[in-house]
Amino acid sequence: MYKLVLIRHGESTWNLENRFTGWTDVDLTPTGVSQAISAGQLLKAEGFEFDVAYTSVLKRAIHTLQYALDAMDSTWLPVVKDWRLNERHYGGLQGLNKAETAQQYGAEQVLVWRRSYDTPPPALEAGDPRSERGDRRYAKLEPAQIPLTECLKDTVARVVPFWQEVLAPRIQSGERIVIAAHGNSIRALVKYLDNIADDAIVGVNIPNGIPLVYELDARLQPIRSYYLGDAEAAAKAAAAVAAQGKA
Amino acid sequence: MYKLVLIRHGESTWNLENRFTGWTDVDLTPTGVSQAISAGQLLKAEGFEFDVAYTSVLKRAIHTLQYALDAMDSTWLPVVKDWRLNERHYGGLQGLNKAETAQQYGAEQVLVWRRSYDTPPPALEAGDPRSERGDRRYAKLEPAQIPLTECLKDTVARVVPFWQEVLAPRIQSGERIVIAAHGNSIRALVKYLDNIADDAIVGVNIPNGIPLVYELDARLQPIRSYYLGDAEAAAKAAAAVAAQGKA
Repeated sequence: MYKLVLIRHGESTWNLENRFTGWTDVDLTPTGVSQAISAGQLLKAEGFEFDVAYTSVLKRAIHTLQYALDAMDSTWLPVVKDWRLNERHYGGLQGLNKAETAQQYGAEQVLVWRRSYDTPPPALEAGDPRSERGDRRYAKLEPAQIPLTECLKDTVARVVPFWQEVLAPRIQSGERIVIAAHGNSIRALVKYLDNIADDAIVGVNIPNGIPLVYELDARLQPIRSYYLGDAEAAAKAAAAVAAQGKA
Repeated sequence: MYKLVLIRHGESTWNLENRFTGWTDVDLTPTGVSQAISAGQLLKAEGFEFDVAYTSVLKRAIHTLQYALDAMDSTWLPVVKDWRLNERHYGGLQGLNKAETAQQYGAEQVLVWRRSYDTPPPALEAGDPRSERGDRRYAKLEPAQIPLTECLKDTVARVVPFWQEVLAPRIQSGERIVIAAHGNSIRALVKYLDNIADDAIVGVNIPNGIPLVYELDARLQPIRSYYLGDAEAAAKAAAAVAAQGKA
């Protein structure tokens, strides 16, 4: 049996300000730092050990991983940063306040943008200063690979190949992996692993900074999955995520 | 012309306590954190950009690199951690106070252990709780590869192959590299790059947290090297390192 641990980054400054973040590279709040340290302490207390760690190229996930590994006395662990674990790109909504956007466009439209499987938010226009095209960290990608917006389906379309090509072979070779990523890149993985329908994944909310453990069989089919630590706290945190889009 | 940047980690808790550290995994002091941030700020102000970063598997170097990259807005940069960049193993002296050791064995003997090229300090004995054999981070090494003590010659014997096999090809492929490492692993590189004689390398002291820039020609021969920032501060910091072994 294999074990895989997923951690959504701790609270970010834009989580706190209730703004759409996407690929914008905002950092953790002090609460987010505490959540990351707690995640590491919990993993350590439960005897988890890892051979390699993965994260995105966004600092809220990278720092979450670094704080968690420090708390596990595993600062030395190899860390791979890959853009395919980035948050869903939020297009023209990046930087906007979620509640204000709901007032402007209606809560229903915002919920569609946030939770529809295949309706992306409005795309960034060419030359929008928010665009990541030109950002050095994506220099090895074809410009067309750098999204101007994404629906969850688009995120799945980059996360699942990353799972199949990179993560799955390493897990099957016996390596124990922890991934620090984002609400939607983790949701993409959860959808794939648990074979969740397109319209049902909308209801799955990933809380910040609580390790999500998957036990997988030899074919990497989930045997079970669970949040580490206080189940009630995890449910409450997930509910808080679900409520963010309300005006 | 290629550029390579070397940074010795910021002040560690055992630098502050004047203890022999070697492979013991002690962390930075608040001063060390400041030095690491300053190093990153300086590199950023001078327009340095990197494609990949290397460090050891010891947290004082890893954290130095992380703070420096954060200060450069380069948290996303790929980081490779490799044991061959570790500090020289200090054998049975690890954990001992440098001044007390000088009082006990004489300053001359301590200077030999610290600065002789080929005389290692007393080896750790089998079963010494300070030994890193059994430490999970070295699990992929043959037990015999994990030193019980090292002289600088031994450190050179692992750092130079790492340069030749890993670093040099990447630099020649055009990648801009920053390395956060340790007094003696950096000294080993400096000795090799500048072709410094065995008995002269003793006099080369690497200050904490000040970027050392090498400009290299197409064959990776140094054109020149210099410390970034205040030259006087760098010289003073190097002199402080040289004075640590006095009783």
